[in-house]
Amino acid sequence: MRLRFEIVVSLKDGLLDPQGKAIQGALPTLGWENVSDVRVGKHIELVVEAESEAEARSHVEEMSRTFLSNPVIEDFRVLSSEEASAS
Amino acid sequence: MRLRFEIVVSLKDGLLDPQGKAIQGALPTLGWENVSDVRVGKHIELVVEAESEAEARSHVEEMSRTFLSNPVIEDFRVLSSEEASAS
Repeated sequence: MRLRFEIVVSLKDGLLDPQGKAIQGALPTLGWENVSDVRVGKHIELVVEAESEAEARSHVEEMSRTFLSNPVIEDFRVLSSEEASAS
Repeated sequence: MRLRFEIVVSLKDGLLDPQGKAIQGALPTLGWENVSDVRVGKHIELVVEAESEAEARSHVEEMSRTFLSNPVIEDFRVLSSEEASAS
């Protein structure tokens, strides 16, 4: 089966996020005064071919840990899975 | 009320995604042969102060459309909202 996963990779809490700070600094000049705590991360979408959903999910978690994120400074979350249409 | 939102900004379908292609090209050399359709986007987390959830969400959607995404080449989705703790 082919399953589509979404992964969010974000900087660990407490680490300085320059991209988020840049967005937050720009928002007031555009009229948005009511926004705070902006953090920017990566969103990765991929399709995994596997025997079962559990197997696919464990592949995605291992990939995220070893390749898609830097575990020293980043956390990841696997958001969702859904059956992908054959292509 | 303070609400935390998550926004995903991704390239429109059909547009070339060099970052996704790079990841997809690297995965087989690391032993992952069963992955396809890799797309990379941005994940933005922010806290909005507003009177109601509907008002906050409309602010977030306008911000996403006018500032956080490039509507010519990107789509955005507002993923979730939850009450943010006071800070």
